[in-house]
Amino acid sequence: MKDLSHIDGLLAPRSIAVIGASEDVTRIGGRPIAAMLKAGYTGRILPVNPKRETVQGLKCYASIDDLPEAPDAALIAVPARLVPETIEALGRKGCKAATLFSAGFAEVGEEGVAAQTELVALAHKHGIRLLGPNTLGVYNVDIGYYGTFSSSLDTGHPRPGNIGIASQSGAFGAHLGALARDRALGASVLITTGNEADITVADAIHWMAQRDGIDVICAYMEAVTDPVSLLAALEAARDAGKPVIALKAGRSAVGAQAAASHTASLTGDAVVADAVLHDHGVIIVRDPESMMDIAYAASKKVLPSVHSLGVITVSGGAGIVISDEAERIGLPMPAMPDAAQARLKALLPYASPVNPLDCTAQALNDPSLLESFTRAALEDGGYGAVLCFLTYVAGSPAVSDTILAAMKPLRAAYPDRIIAFCALGAPEVLERYDDEGILVFNDPCRATRAIHAICNAGATLAGDRPAKMPVPDKIALPDCAPDEAEAKNILTKAGIACAPETRTKDVEEAVTAAEALGFPVVMKILSPDIIHKSDIGAVKLNIGSAEDVRMAFDEIMQAAKTHVPDAAIGGILVAKQLSGGVECLMGINRDPTFGPVAVFGLGGIFVELLDDVALRTCPFDVATARDMILSIRGAPILKGARGQEASDIDALAQMLSKLSIFAAAAGARLLSIDLNPVLALPQGQGAYALDAVIELNEEAS
Amino acid sequence: MKDLSHIDGLLAPRSIAVIGASEDVTRIGGRPIAAMLKAGYTGRILPVNPKRETVQGLKCYASIDDLPEAPDAALIAVPARLVPETIEALGRKGCKAATLFSAGFAEVGEEGVAAQTELVALAHKHGIRLLGPNTLGVYNVDIGYYGTFSSSLDTGHPRPGNIGIASQSGAFGAHLGALARDRALGASVLITTGNEADITVADAIHWMAQRDGIDVICAYMEAVTDPVSLLAALEAARDAGKPVIALKAGRSAVGAQAAASHTASLTGDAVVADAVLHDHGVIIVRDPESMMDIAYAASKKVLPSVHSLGVITVSGGAGIVISDEAERIGLPMPAMPDAAQARLKALLPYASPVNPLDCTAQALNDPSLLESFTRAALEDGGYGAVLCFLTYVAGSPAVSDTILAAMKPLRAAYPDRIIAFCALGAPEVLERYDDEGILVFNDPCRATRAIHAICNAGATLAGDRPAKMPVPDKIALPDCAPDEAEAKNILTKAGIACAPETRTKDVEEAVTAAEALGFPVVMKILSPDIIHKSDIGAVKLNIGSAEDVRMAFDEIMQAAKTHVPDAAIGGILVAKQLSGGVECLMGINRDPTFGPVAVFGLGGIFVELLDDVALRTCPFDVATARDMILSIRGAPILKGARGQEASDIDALAQMLSKLSIFAAAAGARLLSIDLNPVLALPQGQGAYALDAVIELNEEAS
Repeated sequence: MKDLSHIDGLLAPRSIAVIGASEDVTRIGGRPIAAMLKAGYTGRILPVNPKRETVQGLKCYASIDDLPEAPDAALIAVPARLVPETIEALGRKGCKAATLFSAGFAEVGEEGVAAQTELVALAHKHGIRLLGPNTLGVYNVDIGYYGTFSSSLDTGHPRPGNIGIASQSGAFGAHLGALARDRALGASVLITTGNEADITVADAIHWMAQRDGIDVICAYMEAVTDPVSLLAALEAARDAGKPVIALKAGRSAVGAQAAASHTASLTGDAVVADAVLHDHGVIIVRDPESMMDIAYAASKKVLPSVHSLGVITVSGGAGIVISDEAERIGLPMPAMPDAAQARLKALLPYASPVNPLDCTAQALNDPSLLESFTRAALEDGGYGAVLCFLTYVAGSPAVSDTILAAMKPLRAAYPDRIIAFCALGAPEVLERYDDEGILVFNDPCRATRAIHAICNAGATLAGDRPAKMPVPDKIALPDCAPDEAEAKNILTKAGIACAPETRTKDVEEAVTAAEALGFPVVMKILSPDIIHKSDIGAVKLNIGSAEDVRMAFDEIMQAAKTHVPDAAIGGILVAKQLSGGVECLMGINRDPTFGPVAVFGLGGIFVELLDDVALRTCPFDVATARDMILSIRGAPILKGARGQEASDIDALAQMLSKLSIFAAAAGARLLSIDLNPVLALPQGQGAYALDAVIELNEEAS
Repeated sequence: MKDLSHIDGLLAPRSIAVIGASEDVTRIGGRPIAAMLKAGYTGRILPVNPKRETVQGLKCYASIDDLPEAPDAALIAVPARLVPETIEALGRKGCKAATLFSAGFAEVGEEGVAAQTELVALAHKHGIRLLGPNTLGVYNVDIGYYGTFSSSLDTGHPRPGNIGIASQSGAFGAHLGALARDRALGASVLITTGNEADITVADAIHWMAQRDGIDVICAYMEAVTDPVSLLAALEAARDAGKPVIALKAGRSAVGAQAAASHTASLTGDAVVADAVLHDHGVIIVRDPESMMDIAYAASKKVLPSVHSLGVITVSGGAGIVISDEAERIGLPMPAMPDAAQARLKALLPYASPVNPLDCTAQALNDPSLLESFTRAALEDGGYGAVLCFLTYVAGSPAVSDTILAAMKPLRAAYPDRIIAFCALGAPEVLERYDDEGILVFNDPCRATRAIHAICNAGATLAGDRPAKMPVPDKIALPDCAPDEAEAKNILTKAGIACAPETRTKDVEEAVTAAEALGFPVVMKILSPDIIHKSDIGAVKLNIGSAEDVRMAFDEIMQAAKTHVPDAAIGGILVAKQLSGGVECLMGINRDPTFGPVAVFGLGGIFVELLDDVALRTCPFDVATARDMILSIRGAPILKGARGQEASDIDALAQMLSKLSIFAAAAGARLLSIDLNPVLALPQGQGAYALDAVIELNEEAS
């Protein structure tokens, strides 16, 4: 357990000082008090305002020093310039946590950044942990605590329940809270982190992972400011069996920061963050509604380990629509066993009891049919989830008793499965199903997607964690960027297979090398100053004789001199020309947040047109590398599609894992590695890097 | 205008006979009467039941013959066996349209199919048009007409409005109706077509296209039973400026019917139907909720011709989330002009007025900011749609007056643009915006998707129709499947360029041919019995000399004899070996619904792994062919990505259009054509089919 008692103070204080307390319930210093009074906050509210005797009927204190006790936490609703002295006073008083509504810090520019840094230092000096500044605050419905000035409370208070919401953005977090409320979803806790000067979304997730009563964690993030904490928080949530549903915004900024090396253009921040979150078991969503759909489904705490869907429907059409959606997103809908089909067919001759199981409008007249079909789907079909498309039928008050009576024993008998309805009708009718543990959705496809996510989450939470890789010993890198031959030397030492080759300084060396390697050979210029060698004619392929080696040597040298006159030339590389096999690419790119990230893809169009790559933070083991390789859309090519031989995927996986270990060992000076192409030969024959570019950060140490 | 007066009778009868009328309001013969009485149907209800004097307080007639008048239409709620005599009686009486609730026809198997065919013949003999059988019926809210026994009415009647719904499936259609109702959307007309023995969804769409008061058409389809009518209906809707939103179910059945030729596996029904619907301007959706989102947006009758989005937001986070979604779906969000940005910056220094335009929580305190930002987006940004993320702020009754006051003049000043809110709150508050013509969505991403669809629809409805191709004269096809050389001859006559080649019967002819064509050449067996020539070694590439021609000739003949001993051998084809260029494939596949469909794609993995093909019904012109070619994901390869020369796309387009004309001319005997590969040479150098397989249906004539 991580010590997060300071967040306990922020989220569940026994007493709360409100600095800048206001009588006006529409002001920042007034809203929280009004909300707490309305909700019956179980702790003590301690308003502070030198100008008032009372605030909203409560005794008001002239200063922090006048407070009768050290409050567990404080809400600070004073102008930015008064914040430092407020922090000082809170420190004197012994308060350990403060929510800082005040704006005018990092979000307003450089000066604000400096003020914010000073503020954090001051707070920490006094042992005070800060939420914000520029935060909309927090709430904790269970104790009626509203440390927020969000106007979302004007349209109603949230409902208690086992969903927690953490959001960097105040308004967006409050939107999520209001959305949950309007859907009658219980989300007891909202934490908005604002400028994240001290406490971050990662801390909030970690706190919720440890907090009893929170079973589902929703998180909205823009930047990931502390990746180490975030990964620890996600680990804690996973250990606690709590699904984390994350909306990481800022995808459309992908590609804005063009990077020099080839693979860099594919590993933009959002894509890397997605990969990292996915690897840590996070359910990634793109919109608030999907987040709440999945949070709702997860809030029932049924996370099936079986990833399959059985559909019962009163409409053949809806059955098809659901099947289409399930196939589109990859949620399996296996057919019912033959014997069970025959049994159902005997019950209802014109039914189609395959899957979807169409029990037709007859189920309206005879609800025992619905019971029989659903029971068969659970018992004989063994589906992780059963979705009943009942539409307005289930919404009819006249029918709902019968449906409930049919479903209750099934809900009890199969506690580890999802039972969901697609139903339309008055909320008070539909809530009765929900109260019995049946998920209710209006839309069949949203239901299908939420079920898919929850079944996946169940499998992830139940599954093995990838093996923890030891942090490798640091590797010494050269002082400046190595040329191709050096790069390959370095990588070869790290266990990465490169094509056999020799660095040559003159024509005669080249001929000797070519003869030793065996024809045909490839020849390329060696120069750290020439990146795109092919473009200027400094690469020659398919050289078949000593005579051709001589000619190629001169042509390459001439091309280099013509196109890059000032290039430092380290000779010409003569390499054995390998042929056959499948061209892949591997690379490393240093992500500003998550450090070295490995990328794997097939060469050419798969990468350039289709962005078909797998990403992973370094280091990782061979099994993980194998999963990455097999996860790309082009993987069938490696497995031997189109009548070709299967490639040596084992060798690729070995190479990729070793590359990841090398990258982790190389430290912050390693900017990127680009192995393009890597030739995957047929199974058993290995995989070889045919080219290698290593870029270093000259400034880092 | 198509004469659809019989559908007028079904949907807007002045009098309706209910055959099998029931006192019991839960029975099929009772529900429609109860619903009409409740809704105040403006016409005359004429119950028919030999056992009763009155039904639900109305005078009841013993028989159809006893009716005081010829009713405009009849609802038939009697068992299947009594239906024929009922039709006879209606015919005698002079009734011209009947809705046939009765089940037990085509949906129960062969016997039912026969009964249904007889029934239609009988009805048509009497001049009666039929809806159903096995239909849930229709309703038309505007006149209080409920010719349906759907229990969806138990939870409330639909609202009047300009949306029409046509559905093959009864329950799914009623679900759509109930969904619209629960969302307070006005959908006056629902038509469910059941077994479609006579009247189809296509007819229903056509009727709605012509019907005043219906501005948006929603259609649910499984099978397309009458493609000609459907396309005519879609054309009529387009001419009337009414968007059609279609959910075509049954995608997951794609690939179930494997076909022999290569391209056939890519042109499954659902994919073809999608392509056809898309080409006719239909908005294709996959789930009922999206359908209603788009129908709602379209119901305001604002279909902007500008396809761009401006976003105003009180939450920076939401602005990012919307931008991400817009980019994902391809809805452009261009930046505001610099001058306008500067002006807004002056109004609100910490705002980010680029696009999204973040007017921050300040807009709460000063609603004039919201007005200024929105006006700037409309005026200076010129966006087709402006989406304001206002969340719970707009839902606050206290604030809504101010927001409305700010928005009303803008709504009036920019009648051709979409103004939409993402808002949470009580329905009665949000409806006030809606009443002013502002779209209101709970979810920002659903709003974004609906706006995208509507802007696209606006562009489609405003845009040019593809040129109508004249139906070409019928072409005579050979009696049996041609071998490769014959196939190429046939296609060459149709203007499709094939690689220069010669059919040869013996070694000497082959050598002569090769020398005339120029080396290198390709040699292949000619046999209609050998489809996969390469697999058995009956294709030889890169033959560089007369000697090699001799050797290849013998090897190919030997391979053919060994592997397919009984094959009819038509000699060996000697073709000039073309090289360079990009390998494509073109083909024709006969779709059971839409006839010949042309397919275009790049060769290899683009087709096999990625299904990256464009489809189009034949015939079409060169411009359309060009659009198809450029629509595939791999198109950049043809345009010269990766530093290669651009391919001769004009030549490809010419070839594809000619192929489509040939296919249309060839008629039903043409099963498929497979040109794979087609080599697209660099610009100006043409495109050539290197292989051609034509499959014929031996039975059709």
